[in-house]
Amino acid sequence: MHAVFASYAKELGCSYIQDEAGNSYLVNDPSDGYCLIASHLDSVIEGGEYDGAAGVIAGLMCLRWARRDGLRVPLRVGAFRCEESSNFGLCTIGSGLITHESYKENIDSLKGKDGRTIAEVFREKGWSLHPKKISGIGEYLEMHIEQGKVLDETKTEVGIVGTIAGPKRYRMYLNGMADHSGATPMSMRNDALCAAAAIILEVERIGHREAAYNSVATVGVLNNAPNVMNVIPGEVTIGIDMRGIQKESLDRMERDLLRAVKSICQFRRIDCRQEKINDVSPIRMSPETEEGLVKAARELGLSFRRMPSGAGHDAMSFPPLCRTGMVFIPCRAGISHNKLEYTTIPSVADGTAVMYRYLKDRYGTR
Amino acid sequence: MHAVFASYAKELGCSYIQDEAGNSYLVNDPSDGYCLIASHLDSVIEGGEYDGAAGVIAGLMCLRWARRDGLRVPLRVGAFRCEESSNFGLCTIGSGLITHESYKENIDSLKGKDGRTIAEVFREKGWSLHPKKISGIGEYLEMHIEQGKVLDETKTEVGIVGTIAGPKRYRMYLNGMADHSGATPMSMRNDALCAAAAIILEVERIGHREAAYNSVATVGVLNNAPNVMNVIPGEVTIGIDMRGIQKESLDRMERDLLRAVKSICQFRRIDCRQEKINDVSPIRMSPETEEGLVKAARELGLSFRRMPSGAGHDAMSFPPLCRTGMVFIPCRAGISHNKLEYTTIPSVADGTAVMYRYLKDRYGTR
Repeated sequence: MHAVFASYAKELGCSYIQDEAGNSYLVNDPSDGYCLIASHLDSVIEGGEYDGAAGVIAGLMCLRWARRDGLRVPLRVGAFRCEESSNFGLCTIGSGLITHESYKENIDSLKGKDGRTIAEVFREKGWSLHPKKISGIGEYLEMHIEQGKVLDETKTEVGIVGTIAGPKRYRMYLNGMADHSGATPMSMRNDALCAAAAIILEVERIGHREAAYNSVATVGVLNNAPNVMNVIPGEVTIGIDMRGIQKESLDRMERDLLRAVKSICQFRRIDCRQEKINDVSPIRMSPETEEGLVKAARELGLSFRRMPSGAGHDAMSFPPLCRTGMVFIPCRAGISHNKLEYTTIPSVADGTAVMYRYLKDRYGTR
Repeated sequence: MHAVFASYAKELGCSYIQDEAGNSYLVNDPSDGYCLIASHLDSVIEGGEYDGAAGVIAGLMCLRWARRDGLRVPLRVGAFRCEESSNFGLCTIGSGLITHESYKENIDSLKGKDGRTIAEVFREKGWSLHPKKISGIGEYLEMHIEQGKVLDETKTEVGIVGTIAGPKRYRMYLNGMADHSGATPMSMRNDALCAAAAIILEVERIGHREAAYNSVATVGVLNNAPNVMNVIPGEVTIGIDMRGIQKESLDRMERDLLRAVKSICQFRRIDCRQEKINDVSPIRMSPETEEGLVKAARELGLSFRRMPSGAGHDAMSFPPLCRTGMVFIPCRAGISHNKLEYTTIPSVADGTAVMYRYLKDRYGTR
């Protein structure tokens, strides 16, 4: 996909560059103070066609329109790597690395599904997990499908994002005792899967309890061992994802989770090792950019709403560096991370038009 | 392991034969009316060294002693295939096939972990899933580690089995909706893993409720898809194993399970497809053989107890064909289906001695 992306350079009269972390860019003017319009090209396993890619397409459209109109700001279109946490369990790696924003922890030892570390994979590709920080950036914009049902159900054409929910993520390793399922009385068991089940339902309860604050809590990952019919599960790993746009709600969920896990594992005599793999505070988009995008939508006569983002995005890493804004477009039934994910060409055009109108309002054309 | 087994033929002055289902035998006299002493040579994943193999060793010891003493009954030692359900989810396949006892259902389409059907595997090996029925058998004996804690905790040297618990097994396919874990509100989810968790805890509750009847209930298998951090699980498969020595208790567990699954899946709007993969009634060993084995233990001055078997064994398939008996020996802490599984050489010798003494009492020597 990055090769296809690079192939547009000629058609758009741009140059193609790759940064040290493997992210791709098309550049119409190498000057500083540029506006970066970006998203990602990777996808989740069995995911859809629009999550990420639609935002990169939007950038390419802006590049074309900017060339036609002579937009008076240098423009770059970016395509980030590893926005999804599907392989390494960590999200927005490409944008996080080059902004020096995420992952103070030692990222090098993260293992992918095939057992190889991200350090091995990056070394093989010739990329760096410790690249120099992106420079010269004046503003960051991103368009993305909503990945929720609000725009679709309310028949709203675009969403202007105020805050992106921060994820708190844990991996928990539950150790019980793998015994014969037929010959071990119920009272003598240390069943790691039963402990996992109790935690899963507790995570769900915590999410429901915080739903009023737009928080959510999910167990997306479960690996069971030895995973055969006639053995009581001895080792279970679960991956927990909690998100919210209010720090207080997130902290409450985390505290309740850890308290519940401790009590469940004590009661069931299960050893539990916990690994906190992500802790990002909710991130505010730049109020000036938000207002500018709202104004652009209004000028274009599009229906819009201000809204939070429940999903994480590459845009999360940019507010400390530069003005940052984000536009959502509807996706059918809110379905995402699923092959049924769908949005329309007119919706992609609407979202792109809002960003481009904002750029013209702010920087003008020749 | 079957090749090693075959290699003992010369030392023991026997012939080696393989039946149509791939099971191995050493034969000291091809006459009818023989006594078969057998167990299995396969193991569970990450299992121990004694489950099955100890019983085959016991048979080999009896063969040696029978040759020395001129035991007046033809003897065969058997080593069955696929006693464990680790790969195909179905137990005692080798002994079940040649006795025509188990699996009225269409066994051919069962799939292994690598996606290949048992029919493909058997075809490749030159075996048959529809072999002719074993003939000429006069009696069946099996020695096995207990795979429970009773003998070890009560410091009893051998157990004489009265009834083998019957397993009822289900595979259940839960279908929800794989949505984005950050952008899908708690109230709009169809989380297949949460439904699985509720079922797991219900299975555990059912097992505890029936514990007074020596019944147990276990979810040993869980496969979660797509199994990534940022997607709500859309498809989960679970494997349920219920066992008991009282038919009424087993039936009650099955009824409660199906009722609970229906109510959980309705409440959670999850589609559930159920597959019953095993339903064996508790199986009584022959009372005459049981009494003979008790008498033998008493004559040898060994401590013993009459007991049920919670685990399934190859011996389950023989009572409709011939007199059948089973001897247990202790295993440390009752641990089985686990690398820590352990028993001692003296225990193996005790169990073997009980079977051999029984044979001498019953058939005499020259």
